[in-house]
Amino acid sequence: MGEHTYTPTAKDLSYTFGGVPPVASLRSGDVLTLFTEDCFGGAVTTVDDLPSQVCTFPYLNPVTGPFFIEDTEPGDTLAVHFLSIVPARKTGVSSTFPHFGALTSTSHTAALQPPLEERVWLYDIDAEAGLVRYRARNSDFTADLPLDAMHGTVGVAPAAFEARSTITCDAHGGNMDTPELRAGTTLYLGVNMHGAMLGLGDGHARQGQGESSGVAVEIAMTTTIAIEVIKGVPTLWPRIESDNAIMSVGCARPLEDAFRISQHDLVGWTAQLTGLDTLDAYQLVAQAGTAPVGNVVDPNYTMLASLPKHLLRGADLYGGTHERLRATPHPDATGTGAP
Amino acid sequence: MGEHTYTPTAKDLSYTFGGVPPVASLRSGDVLTLFTEDCFGGAVTTVDDLPSQVCTFPYLNPVTGPFFIEDTEPGDTLAVHFLSIVPARKTGVSSTFPHFGALTSTSHTAALQPPLEERVWLYDIDAEAGLVRYRARNSDFTADLPLDAMHGTVGVAPAAFEARSTITCDAHGGNMDTPELRAGTTLYLGVNMHGAMLGLGDGHARQGQGESSGVAVEIAMTTTIAIEVIKGVPTLWPRIESDNAIMSVGCARPLEDAFRISQHDLVGWTAQLTGLDTLDAYQLVAQAGTAPVGNVVDPNYTMLASLPKHLLRGADLYGGTHERLRATPHPDATGTGAP
Amino acid sequence: MGEHTYTPTAKDLSYTFGGVPPVASLRSGDVLTLFTEDCFGGAVTTVDDLPSQVCTFPYLNPVTGPFFIEDTEPGDTLAVHFLSIVPARKTGVSSTFPHFGALTSTSHTAALQPPLEERVWLYDIDAEAGLVRYRARNSDFTADLPLDAMHGTVGVAPAAFEARSTITCDAHGGNMDTPELRAGTTLYLGVNMHGAMLGLGDGHARQGQGESSGVAVEIAMTTTIAIEVIKGVPTLWPRIESDNAIMSVGCARPLEDAFRISQHDLVGWTAQLTGLDTLDAYQLVAQAGTAPVGNVVDPNYTMLASLPKHLLRGADLYGGTHERLRATPHPDATGTGAP
Amino acid sequence: MGEHTYTPTAKDLSYTFGGVPPVASLRSGDVLTLFTEDCFGGAVTTVDDLPSQVCTFPYLNPVTGPFFIEDTEPGDTLAVHFLSIVPARKTGVSSTFPHFGALTSTSHTAALQPPLEERVWLYDIDAEAGLVRYRARNSDFTADLPLDAMHGTVGVAPAAFEARSTITCDAHGGNMDTPELRAGTTLYLGVNMHGAMLGLGDGHARQGQGESSGVAVEIAMTTTIAIEVIKGVPTLWPRIESDNAIMSVGCARPLEDAFRISQHDLVGWTAQLTGLDTLDAYQLVAQAGTAPVGNVVDPNYTMLASLPKHLLRGADLYGGTHERLRATPHPDATGTGAP
Repeated sequence: MGEHTYTPTAKDLSYTFGGVPPVASLRSGDVLTLFTEDCFGGAVTTVDDLPSQVCTFPYLNPVTGPFFIEDTEPGDTLAVHFLSIVPARKTGVSSTFPHFGALTSTSHTAALQPPLEERVWLYDIDAEAGLVRYRARNSDFTADLPLDAMHGTVGVAPAAFEARSTITCDAHGGNMDTPELRAGTTLYLGVNMHGAMLGLGDGHARQGQGESSGVAVEIAMTTTIAIEVIKGVPTLWPRIESDNAIMSVGCARPLEDAFRISQHDLVGWTAQLTGLDTLDAYQLVAQAGTAPVGNVVDPNYTMLASLPKHLLRGADLYGGTHERLRATPHPDATGTGAP
Repeated sequence: MGEHTYTPTAKDLSYTFGGVPPVASLRSGDVLTLFTEDCFGGAVTTVDDLPSQVCTFPYLNPVTGPFFIEDTEPGDTLAVHFLSIVPARKTGVSSTFPHFGALTSTSHTAALQPPLEERVWLYDIDAEAGLVRYRARNSDFTADLPLDAMHGTVGVAPAAFEARSTITCDAHGGNMDTPELRAGTTLYLGVNMHGAMLGLGDGHARQGQGESSGVAVEIAMTTTIAIEVIKGVPTLWPRIESDNAIMSVGCARPLEDAFRISQHDLVGWTAQLTGLDTLDAYQLVAQAGTAPVGNVVDPNYTMLASLPKHLLRGADLYGGTHERLRATPHPDATGTGAP
Repeated sequence: MGEHTYTPTAKDLSYTFGGVPPVASLRSGDVLTLFTEDCFGGAVTTVDDLPSQVCTFPYLNPVTGPFFIEDTEPGDTLAVHFLSIVPARKTGVSSTFPHFGALTSTSHTAALQPPLEERVWLYDIDAEAGLVRYRARNSDFTADLPLDAMHGTVGVAPAAFEARSTITCDAHGGNMDTPELRAGTTLYLGVNMHGAMLGLGDGHARQGQGESSGVAVEIAMTTTIAIEVIKGVPTLWPRIESDNAIMSVGCARPLEDAFRISQHDLVGWTAQLTGLDTLDAYQLVAQAGTAPVGNVVDPNYTMLASLPKHLLRGADLYGGTHERLRATPHPDATGTGAP
Repeated sequence: MGEHTYTPTAKDLSYTFGGVPPVASLRSGDVLTLFTEDCFGGAVTTVDDLPSQVCTFPYLNPVTGPFFIEDTEPGDTLAVHFLSIVPARKTGVSSTFPHFGALTSTSHTAALQPPLEERVWLYDIDAEAGLVRYRARNSDFTADLPLDAMHGTVGVAPAAFEARSTITCDAHGGNMDTPELRAGTTLYLGVNMHGAMLGLGDGHARQGQGESSGVAVEIAMTTTIAIEVIKGVPTLWPRIESDNAIMSVGCARPLEDAFRISQHDLVGWTAQLTGLDTLDAYQLVAQAGTAPVGNVVDPNYTMLASLPKHLLRGADLYGGTHERLRATPHPDATGTGAP
């Protein structure tokens, strides 16, 4: 097991999954502590820094990486376990963004109305207290919300020689924007090319389900992951395992197709794990499952289908990968702060 | 305060919201214990009773009622609090149904493929232990799931002189199929005609989020509600209040429109309750809200937008209706079993 | 064959399909000349009459009828042939309407943006020249467009005891808003209750495909229809027959489901008419069919699937109903102008 | 003006837009005659060649190119005029494909049903008579359909460093699958990177609107294009100009968003060309426009919004590019047949 740290400079950041050369190599079993910039590349630091003015398309939502994962081929699965996700700054930022979000017309749900006002909110992050402080802009209203740090964007190079913007998500992962991707969980991604090409970024101090304004509480992160390569086991859509649940991720529009993909994958996974036939597994998922909403704002929306693990009665989940990675000792993370 | 009981005969059941004369009258402050049939009218009692054979369209998803609520007019709100929802039988039933559900082509998401196998599952309901026992049909797999009794269908007569099938949901409520409609919650429905015309049915011993197979653990219920009329306060889309959260319900296709409706309503409600301006409320909901999925199978899908009540800092919620109804003494429910 | 005329007063108009007593009775073979009001009930007569101010919800989109069609039962088909559709006024009217239309957020595709400006356009109708004159409001631009008179709304009482607003469309017809419903075509509607209960209205001097602004060139009409009852032949979704084509209508959201419904119906219809098996019919429709867009603005959207009749090689279409009705002599239409 | 010919070998074909080095360079004013393979790479030649067996993902829907267009930069527009599109073989091919098409569940509209039968149809192409002969597989039914040769897939490298599979379409063009892309039309594509990187393929002898089976009458083509670079004029979404109409293309899911994009673009274009303000242009498009359906099967669906050119009263359309290219003499096309 190797322990690595990686802190990118601005020019090392990536804006696509696929089509980008690797910044470093990792092996199965390695632990990596890395720094990720926020979705605005750190350019929004006051409420007067309007994202549409201080950021330049397509230099949005940078990811750290890609990391070449040795000995991975199409048909393998890459497991990425989050040992820790720690805010690397004291202030998180959110905003509205012109014609982006669930409660506005957009470039695709096109309308003739002018955009909503672009407005920035700053959040105080108190990592020790585990709090994120919301402050209204037009009143003195404040609210302390639980810190629930996560990565919005984690993915590998897509199949079919594609390179996809880090703004979107699909079968390769990407901008899934689900609050389920927090420390303690393991993400399984199907490998589409030699080296897998893992990248991650878009840390959120927290977000609501659906991320309806289009922007979470964005913040740079110092994150430690442990990875494992599962040879010869394909994974079609991203899957997440926590201590208590298995989850299938669907990314699509309309939202019901994201729901269908995630439910379909979970039904098949459940059937495989339990020996139930397909309809019996469908029935079990329909009554016992939950459907945590990811984002309803990105180019593809995200829905998860989740089932409590105790219903699987000890079935073999990717050969015990999650338990193994969960037990990985956390390295000392010094030296990985913001550049 | 009046205490009432009502047990319908088969011919007293309704299959639409609107267009049906009332079965009884209630007043603000009344408590009613009533019996509701299951969505199959009680016709499925063994695994050989295929719903498409033992049921006859449109005699599906019967509701008990409608109840004429005295002194209600368009522009008022009817609050329906669930004091208790108790399974009235020892066995719940679920099934697949030809071309209905999320993981099959349907009458509207039309395809040329033959339907999935129609299959029935029976569930043992142990109300004392609070358990619902799933039994696979094609193996000996069983699983005990938590009993979480709820009503899938609650509504009033729609606006615009419409009568809507109890299979669908919309601004008048109806077949919302959200697991949030459990005992201890208050449902707020906008009144669209003199008398409101409240009906309810479609008890579920439990359901997963999304109800992906199209059918929950269906069961007759003995339910006690307490109602209150809130004069001169309109409610555009159904809202739910629990002890800990406020929730707005959206019913639509595609699913993102159900999401948008629910988020839009919750943002407006939050702004009104907190004094935040619209964008500040949007931001708060986006970071602090959850989006519990209702159904993704009915003619309209259901999404909820939910916010913790403590963020409202004691704001006046419908004049304290929920707390008042929550404190209503539960009447003796004798005499309301299955006919 | 009976010839009838009918001119409603304002209080005779209907605002739902279903739930309304008949205004008159007709028999198979009858010819009826009737007057229909425009979708605003005639209340918009100058560019200063903003619909949201001069109209009152739900008194929008009135239909003339319903007409009780003798000897009709569920499982029959009602054929409605349009012998003529003639503008009953010299001026048509269109508008934007707050939060209604394809290029604006709406009540369901909900956003926080304020509505577009509400604006009214008047069109000169020159029935003799067959022209409809567009006049810009904010410049001197004008354009003469072809008169292509049609009915946006034609339907019968829905199934399942429903009453549906005349604003929406579904399997019973209703507000389909397709420019294909012009004189010379025959509309086939499945009968859902004894008497069928035919109503029609919402005349358009013309409309574009999709009706993207939400409002066509609205005008009162004097219309002559000939009807025929086809006993024992069910029709699931509305179908249209012209001299050259057969068309299936799908009404749904999202728009691809309206497409799927219409294509599915046309494939089945083609298979039945030609003896092709289902996949061979699917292939023929896929290569030879067109998909005329109806509306993309109403509560349900409309798509049509169309196939040239010559490909059917003389197959029996509803027993020759269209040819028979097409040959019906046109009665003298005096006495049916605006009241 | 340079005249060029280009015939690729199999290894020269591309499977993405973006991420591929150019095969040759062209200049504004050049004429190019090129060969394109069919969407199956020519591998389906008998009804027993099932595409899922004889083709290998992702080697589907190859395009010829990319061609580096000299002196193009982001912010320019590339005009591609189709002087001729001529079938390069005597037989076209179509098929069903497992879980692909409008009338089947798919990878994204996921269901548990088995796929439809995979079946291949061969079409005789009679280019002289202008006919395409359909032959049923399970009966002796045949039908002669008009030859209407077109390219399903034409595009440039996408923005934001993306590489997109040739299976999909988006703002960069790609697999639009619209029957409007026939000889005599000019396609305008916004340039996203230096050199534009034009590719085209996916010839159809004809297709129905919507391409509901997922596969048109696929055939290799010998195609002659004339190109022009319009400096400093950006084009956001693909646009098509014919002798009689201007058309805006929208690519998205759900289908109403493709509709919205196309209508929104056409309204803006019309306003710019006529001097109408936005609402007046919206009104004109809503009453005078058509909405030709492209595909309702690909990862993004395609809708077009079309307006008759005569309504523009001689407005300057991209500086007269279409007329200029339309007048280009057609070169001798010898030497561009199938390899």
